[in-house]
Amino acid sequence: MRLVRFDYQQQIRYGILTDQTIWPLQKLPFDELRETGETIPWDAVRLLAPCEPSKIVALGLNYRDHAAELKMLLPTEPLIFLKPSTAVIGPEADIVYPSQSQQVDYEAELGVVIGRTAHRVAEAAAQDYILGYTCFNDVTARDLQKQDSQFTRSKSFDTFAPLGPWIETEIGDPDNLNLAALVNGEHRQQGNTQDMVFRVTTLISFISHIMTLLPGDVIATGTPAGIGPLQPGDVVEIRVEGIGTLRNRVVVDSHE
Amino acid sequence: MRLVRFDYQQQIRYGILTDQTIWPLQKLPFDELRETGETIPWDAVRLLAPCEPSKIVALGLNYRDHAAELKMLLPTEPLIFLKPSTAVIGPEADIVYPSQSQQVDYEAELGVVIGRTAHRVAEAAAQDYILGYTCFNDVTARDLQKQDSQFTRSKSFDTFAPLGPWIETEIGDPDNLNLAALVNGEHRQQGNTQDMVFRVTTLISFISHIMTLLPGDVIATGTPAGIGPLQPGDVVEIRVEGIGTLRNRVVVDSHE
Repeated sequence: MRLVRFDYQQQIRYGILTDQTIWPLQKLPFDELRETGETIPWDAVRLLAPCEPSKIVALGLNYRDHAAELKMLLPTEPLIFLKPSTAVIGPEADIVYPSQSQQVDYEAELGVVIGRTAHRVAEAAAQDYILGYTCFNDVTARDLQKQDSQFTRSKSFDTFAPLGPWIETEIGDPDNLNLAALVNGEHRQQGNTQDMVFRVTTLISFISHIMTLLPGDVIATGTPAGIGPLQPGDVVEIRVEGIGTLRNRVVVDSHE
Repeated sequence: MRLVRFDYQQQIRYGILTDQTIWPLQKLPFDELRETGETIPWDAVRLLAPCEPSKIVALGLNYRDHAAELKMLLPTEPLIFLKPSTAVIGPEADIVYPSQSQQVDYEAELGVVIGRTAHRVAEAAAQDYILGYTCFNDVTARDLQKQDSQFTRSKSFDTFAPLGPWIETEIGDPDNLNLAALVNGEHRQQGNTQDMVFRVTTLISFISHIMTLLPGDVIATGTPAGIGPLQPGDVVEIRVEGIGTLRNRVVVDSHE
């Protein structure tokens, strides 16, 4: 099932997407998946980021081939960092290339959307805390990342957390999905979540033993090899098998 | 003026504290400071963290003497990192010593509370975006911080962001305040915000050119020299001149 969040006639709601039709929900999808009975044509709405995370917990060096490309050792424990909620944008929204950076990179990632409050969850129970999966682009100002000891500045610019286009609730095995980044229609990054060092349920258990995960929080599970730069005017797409395509345009910073 | 957030008869509200009396507000303090006219005795309520930050933007190495104590070079630009909203606790709430760490440290800090949405604010205008100031304890699992390249795990445990006891709106010069940490009544850390490498308005301008700051967001401005460990059973106090004292007890992790 595809869960969407959308703007229709100046009202923001959640719904279920089937074919070309949206079925609005009575409540938040974390509470109950009961439809109102109303239907809205898919092309009459603007899709938004499919959830509003209080935080995004992201993974560094979680793919074997990406660690090799950076000539880094594989971590023995998950390496986590945070991206702020203010960085989130939805499908078709613009990524703003900040004037402070000369190298802004895409990073294709599988996003895990938390469905209920997760505090110290065992790996065996972690599946119960997942609402579904989405595409995530961990946009990074690579030059600033190399300059700073902490990833925060390079990964926290407004618009640096594209998320969507929807939450897919039915994924057989999240640890075996192809994912890719395309720039202007050309494949630039390709991988499979099988290559992750720490798999989805391990990550939920590890993170929830540190900080409580709230409904709508997103875990960005890391990126495979093949990261590369974006330029203003580029269209970047993140594709994850079984989910869909998250597409965003890169625009020049107009407030310079 | 002292702005408080409090729980009274199972209802959470904001108010103004004068002497022993709380004057509840009609709206959020970011919107309007109009009182309801009701009064509540101070000792009838439980004070909570005085705001609910969507994010805490914290500073590393922002005091000259602290950088020297860590034998680190002074940063040429502010070094920022994030603490999640799930780490926030209020005055008199317990700091939980996590089983994953053998060294949990206090860090006394001046907290700046944002009053309205701040996006690319010039240093000269930054004052207008400040609601007030509070005491902050940047609790840190020092052993994990040394082990990880990113600060996130070591600083993001639930209860690792004590905040309060209130927001003081009238501070003459935030860049000249004494601050201290006490453990079981003994002075352990002492400093003055004059020793900060980057002052408050510089920080607001720098951060808001990266990420939008929202009403209630907190900037934790860094800690002076004299950081040190806490043990379960300890009472830790953060005192900032002109604001007051934030007190929390450290408790053993009961879920081990």
